[in-house]
Amino acid sequence: MIVDFLADYYHNIENYSVLSQVDPGYLQKNLPSYAPFGSESIEIILQDIKRHIIPGITHWQSPNFFAFFPSSGSTAGFMGEMLSTGLNTVGFNWLSSPAATELETMVMDWLGQELRLPKEFLFTGHGGGVIDRMLNLIGRDNIGKLVVYGSDQTHCAVQKAAHIAGFDPNNFRAIKTSRSSSFSLLPQSLLKTIQKDLHSGLVPCYLCATVGTTSTTAIDPVGALCHVAKNYGMWIHVDAAYAGSACICPEFRHLIDGVEDADSFSLNAHKWFLTNLDCCCLWVKDPNSLIKSLSTNPSYLHNNASESKQVVDYKDWQITLSRRFRALKVWLVLRSYGISNLRNFLRSHVEMAKSFEELVKLDKRFEIVVPRNLAMVCFRVIPSVAHGGDANEINRKLLDSMNESGRVYMSHAMVDGMFIIRCAIGATLTQQEHVIIAWKIVQEHANTILNKTAISA
Amino acid sequence: MIVDFLADYYHNIENYSVLSQVDPGYLQKNLPSYAPFGSESIEIILQDIKRHIIPGITHWQSPNFFAFFPSSGSTAGFMGEMLSTGLNTVGFNWLSSPAATELETMVMDWLGQELRLPKEFLFTGHGGGVIDRMLNLIGRDNIGKLVVYGSDQTHCAVQKAAHIAGFDPNNFRAIKTSRSSSFSLLPQSLLKTIQKDLHSGLVPCYLCATVGTTSTTAIDPVGALCHVAKNYGMWIHVDAAYAGSACICPEFRHLIDGVEDADSFSLNAHKWFLTNLDCCCLWVKDPNSLIKSLSTNPSYLHNNASESKQVVDYKDWQITLSRRFRALKVWLVLRSYGISNLRNFLRSHVEMAKSFEELVKLDKRFEIVVPRNLAMVCFRVIPSVAHGGDANEINRKLLDSMNESGRVYMSHAMVDGMFIIRCAIGATLTQQEHVIIAWKIVQEHANTILNKTAISA
Repeated sequence: MIVDFLADYYHNIENYSVLSQVDPGYLQKNLPSYAPFGSESIEIILQDIKRHIIPGITHWQSPNFFAFFPSSGSTAGFMGEMLSTGLNTVGFNWLSSPAATELETMVMDWLGQELRLPKEFLFTGHGGGVIDRMLNLIGRDNIGKLVVYGSDQTHCAVQKAAHIAGFDPNNFRAIKTSRSSSFSLLPQSLLKTIQKDLHSGLVPCYLCATVGTTSTTAIDPVGALCHVAKNYGMWIHVDAAYAGSACICPEFRHLIDGVEDADSFSLNAHKWFLTNLDCCCLWVKDPNSLIKSLSTNPSYLHNNASESKQVVDYKDWQITLSRRFRALKVWLVLRSYGISNLRNFLRSHVEMAKSFEELVKLDKRFEIVVPRNLAMVCFRVIPSVAHGGDANEINRKLLDSMNESGRVYMSHAMVDGMFIIRCAIGATLTQQEHVIIAWKIVQEHANTILNKTAISA
Repeated sequence: MIVDFLADYYHNIENYSVLSQVDPGYLQKNLPSYAPFGSESIEIILQDIKRHIIPGITHWQSPNFFAFFPSSGSTAGFMGEMLSTGLNTVGFNWLSSPAATELETMVMDWLGQELRLPKEFLFTGHGGGVIDRMLNLIGRDNIGKLVVYGSDQTHCAVQKAAHIAGFDPNNFRAIKTSRSSSFSLLPQSLLKTIQKDLHSGLVPCYLCATVGTTSTTAIDPVGALCHVAKNYGMWIHVDAAYAGSACICPEFRHLIDGVEDADSFSLNAHKWFLTNLDCCCLWVKDPNSLIKSLSTNPSYLHNNASESKQVVDYKDWQITLSRRFRALKVWLVLRSYGISNLRNFLRSHVEMAKSFEELVKLDKRFEIVVPRNLAMVCFRVIPSVAHGGDANEINRKLLDSMNESGRVYMSHAMVDGMFIIRCAIGATLTQQEHVIIAWKIVQEHANTILNKTAISA
């Protein structure tokens, strides 16, 4: 029944408004305030889902979803989740389910090989905890001196993580980027910032270089940044949450050139690798520094396998103890598609983005804000077309109007004071025809809004 | 095909060794070292799962699984996961999928009501970030003075979290408990420890009281501990990860009496509430203190709904940005079972544990180490029966021997120098007959081991 329900959902997905149009509090009005005392049938529950949940869903799997970075699910990813949920093992250490640990190790190596990560990142080579390492050097009382570096385009998660980890919020450097260098972090800006901090008696600790930023898919130059940072003994992380998946294609692999000098590298398989939410893949050169910081060893988990040091206990690589069997999903995706089809899938999105970019370029009212990387196009109505109106306000109106139509969902970013519209292509069901229609929808709404502006001006 | 595969798995689950008996590295030997270039059929993949993954699984869903705390999955929980995986929404803020946020709010209220949590914990009432609150008072440079309190039975996750959050590892107080008070944290011990710290110029910051510890299901006296701690402006968290579920039964609700004076309360629905991994439910009285510490506000997530302050953006309640639609699972469990059947399910486990406890008591070679709480029995071969051998060694041998038989899986704990065997009843499929056979297995292995010991002695 659930499979049929989901099959119908996908069959009808284009009939729904991509961005949900419900008002805050809509659900409370439609469902009871208390849990039922007796049991209810699945038929009744599915009716409620159809009637009350689906209208409140923003349809991330719609082919007309172009917002944020899409979350590309797949039947293979879904089957992997079903298996993982059905087996329902708790894989905190090797013993608690050896297959969960060993399949994860293997799948991470499979994927690492396809990304051509240096051998030090793989288990078959010799493959964290930077704060502890630093504090051992400089003394725990000096935690307030540690500095984290990124750019003003670095994902907000890094600043949040630094805050949670006890760094002084004043010691997070969001180094300014600009449109002239496509919002990538310049090595000379990093160097200058580090030198200033050293001069103030602070201690450089961590650098996050981003390959494919959220706002504009900017590519920080990994090699050159590592070249600067490694002189200071900092931990260097390469965040390729979105763009990393594309690096299994030889023609895109250069985006992470220099990763051999980094300490860790991550990508989100749930973004652009057909693996249903959630699945973040992290490679580290020296897992021992992670383990030293994150291991726990309560007596009730003691076991011979762990003591033999022949096994990985993933609980010591992460924050939580409990752990789902996520490797199954990635394994099913890799096997069901095969590297060849996965590459073609990624390439097809890049091609669609190229064609969208060409369409934008043909309309003189619009500009491409930064050269396109991969499958995301950043564009806006150019200020001169705003007829003296505020260009940001016009673009915001245009985006809101498109999204409220329910026919597409794109999102925005503010960079260097500009409100830009992001068209991120990556939903599994998106085809060339959806992209062409999406551009027509942009133009239709622009026609209305720009005419209105012209009249009111 | 996957549903059939899982149905067969459950049908045959008692044929497998509960604790996997594979050797480290077994999987690498059986699977290729590289991802396939072309696609493979699901039939082939399922064959590999049957042949190579299942033997490496420790069968947490087996009715003969009595280790750790069981992870009780259910068909309802499974269906909820399927729906969540199929819809595959990313619910970081309200707008990104209103139904995900609103259903979670509703389900948390439903469950909170059944637990008779005070209104301040519910959304329909007026419902973190303790470190920031404290550091604003005493200055960020004094982070090294903050102290976290728990007992030597508190879950290792609390100490790990304190370490990750930047607390000085020397400032984690694992206050000693003893068998005489069933390993619960005594209010007078807490008071003495706090006073000593104050005398040393330290600042009490956080107390974790546990209702149902991992080693022995000890119940810290929540009310009396709150009474001590609240004089010092500390954040008080009640960790009822395991035992919390039982509190929907009126006869067990007293276990969390006093929770009205705590700041936060949590339980793991994936432990004993039929909700497949993972699902942790957290209630907080003052979500604003969480939000103040954990919120991020990048321009690309700005939207009218968030700015209206009429909606919850759960990204600001947690560490990660991405978020699965977990509420569906809990909703399906609550509705499919209904409160009445859920209570009966929990009670049936408690009754089975009672009967296991009675069986242990009838065998004079064994003792119950601490009075049973809920559905976990802590027992051991008594030292005098060890014939001069080391009682801990004998009990360890007994446990290993049982677990290696593959017929049951129990786990151990070390408390007050004693190696104890834990029989935790809670797997969804466990019936009275499994408990009786489990005890017979204990006795059979004890016969062999104790005879051997007698001979060698």
